[in-house]
Amino acid sequence: MGLAFSTPTDAQTVDSLPSWNDGKAKQSIIAFVEKVTEQGSPDFVPPAERIAVFDNDGTLWAEQPMYFQVLFALDRVKALAPQHPEWKDKEPFASLLKGDVKGAMADGMKSVVKIIMATHAGMTTAEFETIVKDWLSTAKHPTTKRPYTEMVYQPMLELLDYLRDSGFKTFIVSGGGIEFMRPWSEQAYGVPAEQVIGSSIKVEYEMRDGEPVLVRLPELDFYDDKEGKPVAIHQQIGRRPLAAFGNSDADLQMLQWTTAGKGPRFALYVHHTDAEHEWAYDRESSFGRLDKGLDEAQAKGWTLVDMKEDWKVIYPHEKR
Amino acid sequence: MGLAFSTPTDAQTVDSLPSWNDGKAKQSIIAFVEKVTEQGSPDFVPPAERIAVFDNDGTLWAEQPMYFQVLFALDRVKALAPQHPEWKDKEPFASLLKGDVKGAMADGMKSVVKIIMATHAGMTTAEFETIVKDWLSTAKHPTTKRPYTEMVYQPMLELLDYLRDSGFKTFIVSGGGIEFMRPWSEQAYGVPAEQVIGSSIKVEYEMRDGEPVLVRLPELDFYDDKEGKPVAIHQQIGRRPLAAFGNSDADLQMLQWTTAGKGPRFALYVHHTDAEHEWAYDRESSFGRLDKGLDEAQAKGWTLVDMKEDWKVIYPHEKR
Repeated sequence: MGLAFSTPTDAQTVDSLPSWNDGKAKQSIIAFVEKVTEQGSPDFVPPAERIAVFDNDGTLWAEQPMYFQVLFALDRVKALAPQHPEWKDKEPFASLLKGDVKGAMADGMKSVVKIIMATHAGMTTAEFETIVKDWLSTAKHPTTKRPYTEMVYQPMLELLDYLRDSGFKTFIVSGGGIEFMRPWSEQAYGVPAEQVIGSSIKVEYEMRDGEPVLVRLPELDFYDDKEGKPVAIHQQIGRRPLAAFGNSDADLQMLQWTTAGKGPRFALYVHHTDAEHEWAYDRESSFGRLDKGLDEAQAKGWTLVDMKEDWKVIYPHEKR
Repeated sequence: MGLAFSTPTDAQTVDSLPSWNDGKAKQSIIAFVEKVTEQGSPDFVPPAERIAVFDNDGTLWAEQPMYFQVLFALDRVKALAPQHPEWKDKEPFASLLKGDVKGAMADGMKSVVKIIMATHAGMTTAEFETIVKDWLSTAKHPTTKRPYTEMVYQPMLELLDYLRDSGFKTFIVSGGGIEFMRPWSEQAYGVPAEQVIGSSIKVEYEMRDGEPVLVRLPELDFYDDKEGKPVAIHQQIGRRPLAAFGNSDADLQMLQWTTAGKGPRFALYVHHTDAEHEWAYDRESSFGRLDKGLDEAQAKGWTLVDMKEDWKVIYPHEKR
């Protein structure tokens, strides 16, 4: 084959996953992609069916010391506090405004829901998008001091590109808020808004001075987690994915649903093992617990990414 | 320009809309597409933002004497009747099984919902897909005696192709059931399952003999009609469309939401005026009523397609 005809996906000349060490995880990805894309292969899958779904928190970007959307909500409570004098005596806001995050979270998910509804509803969808963009352009992570959008995983960015170059359509299927992710998913991941699936609150169509707006209501519409993920995939994509990527027990049903399909399927768990460059956690973590999923991955032979062993770098700024 | 470099979208050499008469409607479509796709034009829109949304019933295929999905449900009632002896004494089933469709529909939408839930729920999503495909492969329209998938509108198929050739991503946004449309939308319209939005019932993730299934529940999840259409567009696409196509008052909010966006936008109503080759109806019809929408289209200068005047043919088999 002449050089003029070589393509960037020619695995023999170009490494599509340069930030991955040459181990079992990388090899399993490449073997799967080559198998389903090779014309004439018994496992060939037409491009229309090449759907790949990715969890976001802990799979495409970091999720410690807590989900970044929760950190966003905490910042919003502080910003909105002057308009809510009643929060001084009302939990979980009172503790939060005193700087006692742990106290504010005493009621677990109940506290989180109260904080989310108070900070994510009551405005139009256009206003909320502006709030998210403004926050992301200035906010810094509490320990790395980096903008959150720089805390995406370089090896996963390469994987997204590699799959798209191989004819896959890449989707995000996250427990996080759909409107929290869409303003930056295209720039950060190359995933357009219409391929982002997540949790949502209800919105309502309303006419204001003759102009239609969509208003965000303080009411859950859909919680895209655990059993919710295959449901959302079905309702919003309408095809069973060929490949699924996650990092926690909340992704387990998505990986089960994906691999239960006929023909070749691929499931991968990112295992957080690099305490030095990122975080190390699994069975005991409050955010991104990987317990049942770890057992099932081992039992079923799914690909397990050992971040410390399999990845050369974590974040884009470390790229060599 | 040499012939070797001419492209199929070169409007001067190839007519992308051959089944459209050369009138105001066709001209308005072409003028809009050229304006937003011409590099350097002040109205240029990047491809990622070129979202076009289409209603289905009465816009892409026919909807008389009633929505085809209702005809599907009536056929399912007959097919399922032996397993439901209690239907003999229970409305709306009793009337229906006696052949009295009008009597069965006496309670309007309440009757329809009862029939839909009895025929569309209780099976897995995979089973339902098979039922829809089997029905479409054998069922015939009561008056034309043609398969339903042959009752799509040839001029609209050309329009879908023309928009896609011009870099648009085409979506269906229908009041009809999402799982009723997806099994055939790609073949009929070139719209893949993941770009079909519609009404839905709830589904539940369940393990059966160690295999995950999604079970359809007799409970409405989302009614994608009227105010629901902009909501669904927002939740599932996450971008405001550039162009919207409908035929009834149920599409009005979708057209309002689309045209309220900044910059160039396009709205089109298909007006059913051809009693000889299709049906003629608008302000008084039970299915596909176009009343408020007709007034608003005229007031706002939206494109109105007069089917009798603007279309050379209706269905693909009439293509000349």
